[in-house]
Amino acid sequence: MAVHLGPNQYGKAENRLVTVSRNGSVHQLRDLTVSTSLRGELAATHLTGDNSGVVPTDTQKNTVYAFAKEAPVGEIEEFALRLGRHFVGSFEQITGARVLIEEHPWGRIAANDHSFVRGSDEKRTTAVTVDGSQAWVVSGLRDLVVLKTTGSEFHGYPRDKYTTLPETNDRILATAVSAQWRFSSLDVDWSKSFTDAREAMLTAFASTHSLSLQQTLYAMGEAVLEARPEIAEVRLSLPNKHHFVVDLSKFGLENNNEVFYAADRPYGLIEGTVLRDDAPDAGLAWHTLPAF
Amino acid sequence: MAVHLGPNQYGKAENRLVTVSRNGSVHQLRDLTVSTSLRGELAATHLTGDNSGVVPTDTQKNTVYAFAKEAPVGEIEEFALRLGRHFVGSFEQITGARVLIEEHPWGRIAANDHSFVRGSDEKRTTAVTVDGSQAWVVSGLRDLVVLKTTGSEFHGYPRDKYTTLPETNDRILATAVSAQWRFSSLDVDWSKSFTDAREAMLTAFASTHSLSLQQTLYAMGEAVLEARPEIAEVRLSLPNKHHFVVDLSKFGLENNNEVFYAADRPYGLIEGTVLRDDAPDAGLAWHTLPAF
Amino acid sequence: MAVHLGPNQYGKAENRLVTVSRNGSVHQLRDLTVSTSLRGELAATHLTGDNSGVVPTDTQKNTVYAFAKEAPVGEIEEFALRLGRHFVGSFEQITGARVLIEEHPWGRIAANDHSFVRGSDEKRTTAVTVDGSQAWVVSGLRDLVVLKTTGSEFHGYPRDKYTTLPETNDRILATAVSAQWRFSSLDVDWSKSFTDAREAMLTAFASTHSLSLQQTLYAMGEAVLEARPEIAEVRLSLPNKHHFVVDLSKFGLENNNEVFYAADRPYGLIEGTVLRDDAPDAGLAWHTLPAF
Amino acid sequence: MAVHLGPNQYGKAENRLVTVSRNGSVHQLRDLTVSTSLRGELAATHLTGDNSGVVPTDTQKNTVYAFAKEAPVGEIEEFALRLGRHFVGSFEQITGARVLIEEHPWGRIAANDHSFVRGSDEKRTTAVTVDGSQAWVVSGLRDLVVLKTTGSEFHGYPRDKYTTLPETNDRILATAVSAQWRFSSLDVDWSKSFTDAREAMLTAFASTHSLSLQQTLYAMGEAVLEARPEIAEVRLSLPNKHHFVVDLSKFGLENNNEVFYAADRPYGLIEGTVLRDDAPDAGLAWHTLPAF
Repeated sequence: MAVHLGPNQYGKAENRLVTVSRNGSVHQLRDLTVSTSLRGELAATHLTGDNSGVVPTDTQKNTVYAFAKEAPVGEIEEFALRLGRHFVGSFEQITGARVLIEEHPWGRIAANDHSFVRGSDEKRTTAVTVDGSQAWVVSGLRDLVVLKTTGSEFHGYPRDKYTTLPETNDRILATAVSAQWRFSSLDVDWSKSFTDAREAMLTAFASTHSLSLQQTLYAMGEAVLEARPEIAEVRLSLPNKHHFVVDLSKFGLENNNEVFYAADRPYGLIEGTVLRDDAPDAGLAWHTLPAF
Repeated sequence: MAVHLGPNQYGKAENRLVTVSRNGSVHQLRDLTVSTSLRGELAATHLTGDNSGVVPTDTQKNTVYAFAKEAPVGEIEEFALRLGRHFVGSFEQITGARVLIEEHPWGRIAANDHSFVRGSDEKRTTAVTVDGSQAWVVSGLRDLVVLKTTGSEFHGYPRDKYTTLPETNDRILATAVSAQWRFSSLDVDWSKSFTDAREAMLTAFASTHSLSLQQTLYAMGEAVLEARPEIAEVRLSLPNKHHFVVDLSKFGLENNNEVFYAADRPYGLIEGTVLRDDAPDAGLAWHTLPAF
Repeated sequence: MAVHLGPNQYGKAENRLVTVSRNGSVHQLRDLTVSTSLRGELAATHLTGDNSGVVPTDTQKNTVYAFAKEAPVGEIEEFALRLGRHFVGSFEQITGARVLIEEHPWGRIAANDHSFVRGSDEKRTTAVTVDGSQAWVVSGLRDLVVLKTTGSEFHGYPRDKYTTLPETNDRILATAVSAQWRFSSLDVDWSKSFTDAREAMLTAFASTHSLSLQQTLYAMGEAVLEARPEIAEVRLSLPNKHHFVVDLSKFGLENNNEVFYAADRPYGLIEGTVLRDDAPDAGLAWHTLPAF
Repeated sequence: MAVHLGPNQYGKAENRLVTVSRNGSVHQLRDLTVSTSLRGELAATHLTGDNSGVVPTDTQKNTVYAFAKEAPVGEIEEFALRLGRHFVGSFEQITGARVLIEEHPWGRIAANDHSFVRGSDEKRTTAVTVDGSQAWVVSGLRDLVVLKTTGSEFHGYPRDKYTTLPETNDRILATAVSAQWRFSSLDVDWSKSFTDAREAMLTAFASTHSLSLQQTLYAMGEAVLEARPEIAEVRLSLPNKHHFVVDLSKFGLENNNEVFYAADRPYGLIEGTVLRDDAPDAGLAWHTLPAF
């Protein structure tokens, strides 16, 4: 039987990195989860257990923490590029790296300048791919949960023998946004870009009179591309978090979209991509990332 | 062998209730998780399967949704009292009820008055116990995650042969607050009471120069009692979410409380109670609630 | 304002301890999660931050790992007693200890004597309370998920205006058993006791023709007491994991208890206690444990 | 700004389907989580909210439950193919479907033929892609947790200034196997294929004297290909669940690989592919599946 090694990578996942920097009595807090993966000439370890090319995942972890001290972390895209380029530049057999970072939000407690309260479960994300001298950045966010109490309809769909869903002209629309956007350049004001892209999505979600979650998805992707010229493509994964109107007629009560049951499973799942017509080739930008 | 039925209760847990109310174009959103439990003369169903006394958990669920329509939900304490008193007052064999409600926070999206974004994972909680004509309220919060980057020490502890921990004059202090407070009265401005109690805890956490998490716990409990005279007792459960200073000396780097590893497990767990000296008897207030 | 410190404890939670012992080439694997908590004269640290009485949680952790080497771990009840008695016996100000241990099941892979595969998510548990020279043991299990496809009915319940549930003579009954049982003695064959108690519950669940989950709960508790004379009391918490018959009549199909939707939330929650008539006083056995 | 819709799909995720079939008094239980997604001419709903092509996700859900009654579910691969082909064959605008099924294991309780106990958290999985008249099957498993107490080394790796890991000739090796394998044909004994592939992986994990987790990964993939000729390619994602030897020397104790701390995060993550040299083209088999 003739078999061979196909695509592979290895690394250290979910390094929990917290940094504190001080400007007099004013402290800055950063809370990151950093995962690194390396690719390259790694057949030997798979085939014979020869580890002469394997930069240990423990070393990758140490590098993450050391790099956080050697220079300011900066925006997560910058930190990921620094790490990825280091690994590819430092070891001959390592030809590629992917660095994934999630940033967790914190706010300040009013009482002083060194106390913080954890924000929402939303994460700002980046996925940097380095291949030789090239690099790609895909940034985004996860677990941004949004809901509209009106301005959402769903009707006009085809029916077959298994269709029982009633049409509606007014429903709750709720989702937990996962979005990834690809940059066509690395010369970006990462912080402003993120803030604008997120704001564009929130506004598009709220402002679009929705005839389907697909329409809202497209509007959100388009809004990101309108807001930030350096973004070439947006991928969105939007679970439809169903809120069912509870039938209270059995109790002699009218329920005019006032009382809902928020369901767990199953849920709709709407996934799609919005691209600029002149988007450059994606190269390895999406390497091993989820399709949506 | 002679055995008998001891304490018992039954109910419907985690009813996910979302309500929308409208004041013109301005919508209000409420997002609650409601659990009900009943007690009473329930030996027959346990011993013989005679269900003539068992108000079905399905009926309890229906009641939650119907009550949300029959009158405004109001503060979670009010809604829990309404539900609990209904069950005890409507069925002869049901002598007691416990209603637990968690409220999930949402904020507004600026674009319009009917769009919302989910807030943090923190929950406002209440646990109401009804027994005959009496009732008790314990409110609180869960998953309020806070962190101080300085102003926390830990030293002066006893040492034995298993002690290796170095003393420190400066560490990160972080915890996820679970707090429950018992009211000595039911004539309370529930909303203001919650806001003040939460604010008092945040300020105490931030302002207390901490020599131990126990000291911070006591200060937080005391601050709640100072802020709100109707609160008789506070129970706190504070996991010590360890942030370890990473040893970078191996890489020729000094780490002056700048780079930390945020650990998952194990974690310290500090639990305690602060009471007014003249706190009234707790009665059944803590019925089946966690000790901390 | 006069306030004071009430009940309190502190410790290290969720120490992940894995041990390997060898009998020639045959290896034994143990996988435990160990939590320790101490009580005693601890007012000083709460009130002034004086830690002279505070055995650090880090020391508690070290002790867990050292004790696993100093002598064989043995049954979890034995290990918990050893740890609890050590802390109370070694520090004058520590008057009480609670040790909670969960054991995670592993099976063997046939290929050799040192390879293992993780079993179910079920955990064997113990909670040991030491107070001075006294000790109590409460053991049990969590997340034992069981299901019957028939032999379960539910009818004869009272109806009010909120009742819509149809009566049934045949339904799926499913639950995730959490059980805790209190020993009246410490002179117990812990391993055999656990095996017998678990087996008794499984058999009672399967064999009881159930007219309510309450009836099944009582039968399970009674079976444990019948099987093991050293057990004085059993507390059970049984979520009713609803499996709803899907209405396929809309598609011209009869669904004779063949196709079900397994719901997540809400769920019924049936909790109760079965005691021997001559059960000794519980003392501190249930200290800080869930009521069910 | 010129933008357009890129790849997209939509469906109903995580339909919880439980079925019971009876052979006299002997009952069979199946417990599946089924997700469906459709592709096709769906631009209209994204661009204008015209839903005339959108088969509702609610209809997809209904179809899952109806199909489970209309014919025996069979192996999960068969059920997924039936569902996928139905959607593509029934709606002109739907040109593709992906059906993902997870099967949850249950065992029998000895007492009778209709009582069951939930098995491990391991899931058998399949991902079927239908495109027009073509179909591809990728099956596998998730959360198969395995551990070896010896027979694992790690040394000979390159060192840089960030390397601190000591080399080892004996360590615990533990992982939670996620594996996906692609079939080169649809004419397969799905049940036997799964059993053999799983067994081959277990045996390879146990029997391979491991010099790196990469070597074990390759051996596991190769073993699957050896065991089952209809499998063309195996993708594996193996977290290295670190078990660290606890340093007990501070307490005067030698720890000869007996006492370990099982860490949560970070963890190593080893991912790779093993292919037959003559593997047919993958086509759309991996459509939207994780890279590993």
